[in-house]
Amino acid sequence: MRASQYLIATLKETPADAEVVSHQLMLRAGMIRKLASGLYTWLPMGLRVLRKVEAIVRTEMDKSGAQEVLMPAVQPAELWEESGRWFQYGSELLRLKDRHERDFCVGPTHEEVITDLIRNELKSYKQLPANFYQIQTKFRDERRPRFGLMRAREFLMKDAYSFHASTSSLDDTYQIMYQTYHNIFTRLGLEFRAVQADSGSIGGNSSHEFHVLAQSGEDAIAFSNESDFAANIELAAAIPETTERPAATQDMMKVATPEQKTIEAVSTFLKVSPQQTIKTLIVHGEEENTLVALVLRGDHTLNEIKAEKLTSVAEPLQFASDAEIKAACGAEPGSIGPVGLGIEVIVDRSAAVLGDFVCGANEDHMHLTGVNWERDCTPTRIEDIRNVLEGDLSPDGKGTLEIKRGIEVGHIFKLGNKYSAAMNASVLDENGKAVIMEMGCYGIGVSRIVASSIEQNHDDNGIIWPASIAPFSLVLVPLNMHKSEVVAQKAEELYNRFTEMGVDVLLDDRNERPGVKFADMELIGIPHRVVISERGLKQGTLEYKGRQDSESQDIAVDEAITYLNQKLES
Amino acid sequence: MRASQYLIATLKETPADAEVVSHQLMLRAGMIRKLASGLYTWLPMGLRVLRKVEAIVRTEMDKSGAQEVLMPAVQPAELWEESGRWFQYGSELLRLKDRHERDFCVGPTHEEVITDLIRNELKSYKQLPANFYQIQTKFRDERRPRFGLMRAREFLMKDAYSFHASTSSLDDTYQIMYQTYHNIFTRLGLEFRAVQADSGSIGGNSSHEFHVLAQSGEDAIAFSNESDFAANIELAAAIPETTERPAATQDMMKVATPEQKTIEAVSTFLKVSPQQTIKTLIVHGEEENTLVALVLRGDHTLNEIKAEKLTSVAEPLQFASDAEIKAACGAEPGSIGPVGLGIEVIVDRSAAVLGDFVCGANEDHMHLTGVNWERDCTPTRIEDIRNVLEGDLSPDGKGTLEIKRGIEVGHIFKLGNKYSAAMNASVLDENGKAVIMEMGCYGIGVSRIVASSIEQNHDDNGIIWPASIAPFSLVLVPLNMHKSEVVAQKAEELYNRFTEMGVDVLLDDRNERPGVKFADMELIGIPHRVVISERGLKQGTLEYKGRQDSESQDIAVDEAITYLNQKLES
Repeated sequence: MRASQYLIATLKETPADAEVVSHQLMLRAGMIRKLASGLYTWLPMGLRVLRKVEAIVRTEMDKSGAQEVLMPAVQPAELWEESGRWFQYGSELLRLKDRHERDFCVGPTHEEVITDLIRNELKSYKQLPANFYQIQTKFRDERRPRFGLMRAREFLMKDAYSFHASTSSLDDTYQIMYQTYHNIFTRLGLEFRAVQADSGSIGGNSSHEFHVLAQSGEDAIAFSNESDFAANIELAAAIPETTERPAATQDMMKVATPEQKTIEAVSTFLKVSPQQTIKTLIVHGEEENTLVALVLRGDHTLNEIKAEKLTSVAEPLQFASDAEIKAACGAEPGSIGPVGLGIEVIVDRSAAVLGDFVCGANEDHMHLTGVNWERDCTPTRIEDIRNVLEGDLSPDGKGTLEIKRGIEVGHIFKLGNKYSAAMNASVLDENGKAVIMEMGCYGIGVSRIVASSIEQNHDDNGIIWPASIAPFSLVLVPLNMHKSEVVAQKAEELYNRFTEMGVDVLLDDRNERPGVKFADMELIGIPHRVVISERGLKQGTLEYKGRQDSESQDIAVDEAITYLNQKLES
Repeated sequence: MRASQYLIATLKETPADAEVVSHQLMLRAGMIRKLASGLYTWLPMGLRVLRKVEAIVRTEMDKSGAQEVLMPAVQPAELWEESGRWFQYGSELLRLKDRHERDFCVGPTHEEVITDLIRNELKSYKQLPANFYQIQTKFRDERRPRFGLMRAREFLMKDAYSFHASTSSLDDTYQIMYQTYHNIFTRLGLEFRAVQADSGSIGGNSSHEFHVLAQSGEDAIAFSNESDFAANIELAAAIPETTERPAATQDMMKVATPEQKTIEAVSTFLKVSPQQTIKTLIVHGEEENTLVALVLRGDHTLNEIKAEKLTSVAEPLQFASDAEIKAACGAEPGSIGPVGLGIEVIVDRSAAVLGDFVCGANEDHMHLTGVNWERDCTPTRIEDIRNVLEGDLSPDGKGTLEIKRGIEVGHIFKLGNKYSAAMNASVLDENGKAVIMEMGCYGIGVSRIVASSIEQNHDDNGIIWPASIAPFSLVLVPLNMHKSEVVAQKAEELYNRFTEMGVDVLLDDRNERPGVKFADMELIGIPHRVVISERGLKQGTLEYKGRQDSESQDIAVDEAITYLNQKLES
């Protein structure tokens, strides 16, 4: 491609309303433009990236044996009524009426449509398993679209749906999809983790999220440094303590802790480590007008997802107000503890193995030291309610945990018979008996991958694309091409040569200053750059620079093709 | 692809609600399924065809220098208000409100969005011309969707929009697009015609439609057998008569023609050829309560589009009622003629060169013979108001006209400044002065092409795909594969060989009777079929049959690859 005949729409200024770096860089590099809130037009430069991501996803899905279909974006309400989602789904479902006043929606997902299709097409267990996918434009009417493509309203999605006569067949396809997703994200050149997204049971595999790791990620992910264990921190189980609770060595004593309200303040004041203290949080109970105490080791934080799943705790989790705490416990929040508390006390497993610990005395400005479970107060229950910490042992027993932030770009999920039962999608089994099919669903946010790739790979100068999805692999920058015939000739020669070789090469033949070209090409993130200058050609050299190299280097003109081929292949 | 692992969803019965052959065959061959009125899901077999069409369109558009973009399907009302179309566009525009009650539509076309984009991105005449296209899902809320993909509500479209600083630049790009469309439809393997779609002025080229020729086409197209002249019959100009009107040789006489009301009846009764008679049609005039007579040669038919464009004729054309005719002319419709008629008389050019002709006498059951213009009655005006006939001289002076029916699948159009002026889309010219851009737009109905290809190419057994868009190029049909090891082995060998060669090959390894397989593959329309049987292999032969061959033929196993390669390439 010749840059002079291509829309290079780079911007010098960072648009004011772009909050995250991928949004900023995609606007600045001329990849996308906003049409309206949450609606973006893909410019030629950005679309090249999107199409490359799409092609990788398609190739790997085809390899997995999935069959591509294409379903309408606009879907009739009847099917959604049949599944029950027409009423359940909130305002994110973009509903509309056609000219005959019939109800439709612009689909955010296609479970109903595919289930309807398959219940009509497949009749026998012999036709199963079958897995159908599409790469298609979806719409989710986000209340507050933001972060560019990270939370857009219209987006490109790969969604797949598998159908089975048995759960073991579903398990098999689920594993194939797990591996396929692994292959896809590996080929995309992204650092990613497959994360357990089910309710934390170790080894449970009924749902996995695939996260691209990036500091700006919305989710914190805990993963083992030795195994493939990875879980959203919200769901990561803390490994049970293996140490026994030590025997009591101190008497319980009440001490004054004036104005010391936080764990840090109290532990400093009393000269004990935070690990030797506990914190007591008061939340609403499941039964009306009840409160529940949640007790954690001082250096731990509450995992709200784990807590609200406990029976006797209200869901969603609701913290008691200061007034409620004062009324129930007799003290301000800074001085609460489990001793003598007249409400249910749920103790985290790590707090439950402490001895001689410090806690609030349920009396303002007072704490207790030398407290011991059973002797001084008895936990109602011991549970896992804390967030895991970096350095914790991995719950699968292999290695210790690291914690990084991630952006969800894929999700595989065992639907079971949720949709097939509601919509009566069955096949005949070996005995001629109708059985409701088992289903799996498998999504990838195709347009979101483009943004998350940038969140993971960028620097002050712009985007750093993985080789597999860069809009162009190589840019040729001739200096003074319009004045120097020898430069123009060499540039054209190389451009033709690489084009013939099937390399995605951009010839920056724009009538711009070198500095402008260099800055644009770094911003756009083209992996390899070759500068052709009259001075260099006189010496028989070209100047090469990789996108992440700090310095450029001279390469012999004669060896340029070989040299660049090696770079392009590496 | 192995058929056993692919959705072969053929139907024995023709679905009752499918009116046209493409719709019937796409359903029967398992290419599409209806989701709701005008909404279709593409099954794997159909999607392969759609993707091949899409790829050809994309390749040729890229070659033309157009740049691919992707605009949102959902568009904000503001832009449509700016262009004025929010109010002009009828119920075919699918309007909706988002969760914040803002107005949007699901786009049937993207002039507003691209014009908004380009007015923001391009600033200088130096950046022009530029041509942007997308291949994208569109929605048109048809009042009565029908004919399957021929008039669906959701459909896949290639739409392109070009921008120019001058009309001559627009002319250049228009010509490039004309040629590109020619290349696309040629590569698609379709018989087509580029048809003038402007208001009939010869040599006019501000709009062309591209029609796939098919008997079921909605439009009749007149085209020269010697030149590239082609026009929708509604707009095709009749060439002016070159003969002089002969001098009168007969006296005008009134003759009784009892019960003879049609041209055929009258001419038979009076023993004259229809070409020697005229017919007189009475229509409403442009001014209220006026009538106008339109006079044609007896064997010609009225072109209503030409007629309603005439000043003094009401638009849309409205025929006078029998009562109105009786009141104004004094006779029933079967006996009307121009002689002594007290209203404006517009005579077609071919009728105007007749002498000694027959016409109604404006008296029931009476006609006049030996009538001559000027002597007996005077035309108010002479105009071109007839439909052209097969065999007419071509209006461009080259060859004679043929008439065929066509399906519109493409349209190229000079928009001029319609949108750019309304939306103030300008660039700075050489002198730094803002000039409104000229625009062109260029559409192709990608999904419609699939259907129209079938309308053009099918037989009693099913679809006949052009090689370039067939879902599979070659099908291997092993007989008794599950019992005969030698058959299975040869089938697998050939399948692997062709797969490696990059041939789209389908191995019909289903456990079905040969007759079922043959019928399915003919219905689906795979161009080449090879049968592998134990009997044949014993003789060292395979059985080959092209989709349109009446008989199969034996080919030597050893020469099969060479033989089939020749077939696949031809």
